[in-house]
Amino acid sequence: MENSNNQTKENVTTILTPDELLKHWQGHRTLTRRVIELFPEKEFFTYKIGGMRTFAEMTMELIGIAAPGMKEIVIGNTEKLREDFDHGGKKSAILELWDKSTEEINSYWEQLETKDFSREMKLFGEYDGTVMSFILYFIDNEVHHRGQGYVYLRTLNIEPPFFWER
Amino acid sequence: MENSNNQTKENVTTILTPDELLKHWQGHRTLTRRVIELFPEKEFFTYKIGGMRTFAEMTMELIGIAAPGMKEIVIGNTEKLREDFDHGGKKSAILELWDKSTEEINSYWEQLETKDFSREMKLFGEYDGTVMSFILYFIDNEVHHRGQGYVYLRTLNIEPPFFWER
Repeated sequence: MENSNNQTKENVTTILTPDELLKHWQGHRTLTRRVIELFPEKEFFTYKIGGMRTFAEMTMELIGIAAPGMKEIVIGNTEKLREDFDHGGKKSAILELWDKSTEEINSYWEQLETKDFSREMKLFGEYDGTVMSFILYFIDNEVHHRGQGYVYLRTLNIEPPFFWER
Repeated sequence: MENSNNQTKENVTTILTPDELLKHWQGHRTLTRRVIELFPEKEFFTYKIGGMRTFAEMTMELIGIAAPGMKEIVIGNTEKLREDFDHGGKKSAILELWDKSTEEINSYWEQLETKDFSREMKLFGEYDGTVMSFILYFIDNEVHHRGQGYVYLRTLNIEPPFFWER
């Protein structure tokens, strides 16, 4: 049931498999990584408009949510949400954290079963919802902030990647 | 199978039902509507930064995609993508189009069956994908541009709604 390739049109019982959802999310993460890469090192950590945060700060929020969120969903440990990580002002340090998260997400995902997605829980000791609602939130929140990153890049005269390139 | 309330943990075969996906999308649409409402009438049609489009133009792109896309998915007619609509410089005209789209989406959605989501098609005579890939794109694209709308509002000194309010 997890694999859409095994389904025929006659016995389809799902509109989205866990494998497809992971691929969708990791596709978004690939695009976000390209946005991080496009920022000049200095502006990544310093540039902001409208009283908003730097794109480095938004990226650290995403890093603090994604793999730790998946860890809590799968392992059940509750840790406080963290939005700050050591980076020494180096974009490469953030990209390393990003890539480590990518592997961790894949690894935790393997331990998820279809029935887990409807499980209700409290995430980061604070937020109530189903596992699926959290995963959709992780993705939506990333798309939301990446859209803001696009505006930052545009106002820095840098052309962002095409939105549909994943 | 469409209704998660009828599922017990033992026979769960899906992570997301069509009903849940529609509710997710319409939740996002409610939030986007609030962002449109928060723009001052003049700035909605004129304000832009970084060489980007006005939020009115982005909104018309969303209007041109959502209900017409659902219409094509369900009815099968192919029309060219439209991103411009008569509005007479009135935000109320755009909000009327928005609300009409909301009803149309709900109405077309009722005609979708689970098996339709994996159907491959060419949308707007241009884009290849499955029905599900298009619907996810409609949602992601809206979240992306709304995130940009948040930056516009912030730089206009207007506080956007909380992201999780749907």
